[in-house]
Amino acid sequence: MLEELKEKVFQANLRLVEYGLVVLTWGNVSGIDREEGLFVIKPSGVPYDNMKASDMVVVDLDGNKVEGDLNPSSDTPTHAYLYRHFDDIGGVVHTHSSWACSWAQAGRDIPAYGTTHADFANTGVPCARGLTVQEVNSAYEYNTGKVIVKEFSNRGLKASECPAVLVHRHGPFTWGSQPFKAVENALILEEVARMAYQTEQMSAFDSSANIGIEQYLLDKHYQRKHGKNAYYGQNKGV
Amino acid sequence: MLEELKEKVFQANLRLVEYGLVVLTWGNVSGIDREEGLFVIKPSGVPYDNMKASDMVVVDLDGNKVEGDLNPSSDTPTHAYLYRHFDDIGGVVHTHSSWACSWAQAGRDIPAYGTTHADFANTGVPCARGLTVQEVNSAYEYNTGKVIVKEFSNRGLKASECPAVLVHRHGPFTWGSQPFKAVENALILEEVARMAYQTEQMSAFDSSANIGIEQYLLDKHYQRKHGKNAYYGQNKGV
Amino acid sequence: MLEELKEKVFQANLRLVEYGLVVLTWGNVSGIDREEGLFVIKPSGVPYDNMKASDMVVVDLDGNKVEGDLNPSSDTPTHAYLYRHFDDIGGVVHTHSSWACSWAQAGRDIPAYGTTHADFANTGVPCARGLTVQEVNSAYEYNTGKVIVKEFSNRGLKASECPAVLVHRHGPFTWGSQPFKAVENALILEEVARMAYQTEQMSAFDSSANIGIEQYLLDKHYQRKHGKNAYYGQNKGV
Amino acid sequence: MLEELKEKVFQANLRLVEYGLVVLTWGNVSGIDREEGLFVIKPSGVPYDNMKASDMVVVDLDGNKVEGDLNPSSDTPTHAYLYRHFDDIGGVVHTHSSWACSWAQAGRDIPAYGTTHADFANTGVPCARGLTVQEVNSAYEYNTGKVIVKEFSNRGLKASECPAVLVHRHGPFTWGSQPFKAVENALILEEVARMAYQTEQMSAFDSSANIGIEQYLLDKHYQRKHGKNAYYGQNKGV
Repeated sequence: MLEELKEKVFQANLRLVEYGLVVLTWGNVSGIDREEGLFVIKPSGVPYDNMKASDMVVVDLDGNKVEGDLNPSSDTPTHAYLYRHFDDIGGVVHTHSSWACSWAQAGRDIPAYGTTHADFANTGVPCARGLTVQEVNSAYEYNTGKVIVKEFSNRGLKASECPAVLVHRHGPFTWGSQPFKAVENALILEEVARMAYQTEQMSAFDSSANIGIEQYLLDKHYQRKHGKNAYYGQNKGV
Repeated sequence: MLEELKEKVFQANLRLVEYGLVVLTWGNVSGIDREEGLFVIKPSGVPYDNMKASDMVVVDLDGNKVEGDLNPSSDTPTHAYLYRHFDDIGGVVHTHSSWACSWAQAGRDIPAYGTTHADFANTGVPCARGLTVQEVNSAYEYNTGKVIVKEFSNRGLKASECPAVLVHRHGPFTWGSQPFKAVENALILEEVARMAYQTEQMSAFDSSANIGIEQYLLDKHYQRKHGKNAYYGQNKGV
Repeated sequence: MLEELKEKVFQANLRLVEYGLVVLTWGNVSGIDREEGLFVIKPSGVPYDNMKASDMVVVDLDGNKVEGDLNPSSDTPTHAYLYRHFDDIGGVVHTHSSWACSWAQAGRDIPAYGTTHADFANTGVPCARGLTVQEVNSAYEYNTGKVIVKEFSNRGLKASECPAVLVHRHGPFTWGSQPFKAVENALILEEVARMAYQTEQMSAFDSSANIGIEQYLLDKHYQRKHGKNAYYGQNKGV
Repeated sequence: MLEELKEKVFQANLRLVEYGLVVLTWGNVSGIDREEGLFVIKPSGVPYDNMKASDMVVVDLDGNKVEGDLNPSSDTPTHAYLYRHFDDIGGVVHTHSSWACSWAQAGRDIPAYGTTHADFANTGVPCARGLTVQEVNSAYEYNTGKVIVKEFSNRGLKASECPAVLVHRHGPFTWGSQPFKAVENALILEEVARMAYQTEQMSAFDSSANIGIEQYLLDKHYQRKHGKNAYYGQNKGV
């Protein structure tokens, strides 16, 4: 079942490796079929280089396995929670990419310092709070999803306004209209996270440095790419 | 029309990927035919790996499309402005390369700290001021070009003296006698930007550190490579 | 003799290169046959690109050569010491990988800052003390092993709780149930070492930064991957 | 003439690219035939990817071209000076590799912080003083060699004790018994330069950090690899 989606999710997982976002068996991509109410996800702890499309696992929105020989990613309940609460997303990615994880470990939002960021999100990338001992010790992965969704809700943010989040001590989750877009967003997040670090370090050496993007420039770049009157890229169909 | 230039611009765009200066669809290269008063530029938002030479777009010096099935890069008005005001350049490049963008985000010139820099430019790389809300909200890309040219004019700099600029919050533009040279300059800028960062960080750990190149050494290296009596490289024709 | 183990150790050594953990002839991997009481190790100072499985050297647990045309790695006495005192390890790796060595040079433990670390070890990675002049000048490599084992003993740590150690001024040793696992641990150590550095640097720019993992989260991640009721990955046989 | 040496020098130049030590046409390797009193060097400003062994230029020890269609590297007088004063070297390399250049730009010696460094040199890597305006404006490249040799002489250092030097504001020169060894030393220098940077940055975050290698450990590692009773590597002939 869902063979086409399995192929897509499989290819999107391989792209994590190609983009240098994962090592060993780390990371996972999923993609959803909203009509069926099912999603497809990477199996847990399987090396990328001998994985097959048929190894992808089909699960329902409660995270129960519907089809597949292997166990789904241990992060499956987080993906499920995100799909249930973020209506307009079609793919979810989790990585331990180096720069994004470092911000997560520092417990900091990634500030919007320039137009590379603004092309991606029209806000800083939120770092959600860490989980309590109770949340960790029961339904840890489910609670991870819950904390993410609550963070967006507390900030009045929609999933479409920022396709990424950090979880304190842990690392990034990203999403998109489909699995490949979620992987692209994982790559962009990593680029943006690295640049933000470098920007801060550089600013320490010159008191005339001036960091932090103006709201009007943030809006401009975000809107020219993602807004109603976007003029970046080609018309649909290309 | 301009098939040879299209091929050249196409190849120069691919080199951005080869040099690790762009990810996804980011970045763009253009090249001009001064006799025809037309330039050729990458289409907007098209992935590098299935782009063809025939996808390149021909535009006039006001940035109007003259030939091509696709939309030209959204940065086209910036390229056009630079071609109109910098008479001796034949190619323009825009990237979001990591180190150069970080300096742009910090709002700092890249200081000339050594001979690698001096082989490239005989001044620090200017960081042009950010755009005002008015400049951003009307003809943003045109105004980006304007701010660059004004920055050079304010500093009494000729385009030939420094083949690169940063735009605050945004990133680098580079140029050269032809598209490939502009791409090489984008690569050198990235190297120089990275070294300048490392140099500053290192100098914080030893009070005997001494950074900032002497004018005579800056001149020497710049002139031995770019001056009238340059003796770096081979005679013309090689 | 031990042809199968030689092939495994040979392949594991090549993986060091593939993972970017070594340059030139640096680094070495060994693997033990506990029943025979012999281990197989890379020859000393041989380039990876023309090494053969038959070049691997067989040594006994006192580090004496039992079979092989070439000299074993100069670090052989360290490997031997570790095999004698850490009963449950099947492979040992030594590298001069950049980030792990830098922590070793700084003389610091690598703090546990997040779940990437917790998936790997349920403690910070210890930096063992440097060797005294007497220890360096007689049986240097043997004493290196001794200092490592003593460090674990002083801290009440078992080898299985943390598959890596740093030796002050020198660099990392890692281990695992078999040679490939020890190499994977060398790779993970490098990732974790880099992230810990970045995390600390980032935290200097925002007083709200909060670094250092909670014990309950460290335990959770370590146990979900390595504990009795581990649920990361697939059942045995997959 | 010297066809075998040309091939060797050509291959050693290509290895600079393979090791990631150069971009574009930067860097150069030379190798000497002591009996003939001639050396072979890369032509100036020629791209690596279409260079041939027959493009290598033969020059005498005064730096005069003896054979070759192309101009020799503009750094030829520096190479010549080093060959004349460092009797036991067979190859010289100059690069603008990122980490080594950054130390040179900071005007700092690279301190010996660990055994990776000690396997390479038994002292910190000296940063020679910058050239005066008079030295830059007449016989610049010759004076660069002179300043290097004087630095070693002032410090009582032999070329064999440290196969590398930095020139303030400029970058590294390395040498070795033959061209390939000089290239390997350029690679090791880059690794050591990077680690030293990271070590210093890390030490700023923990007052218990302890950096700077003990002389006895520096000697031990240097001697086990390069001393009379060296036991690293294989016997000659392997």
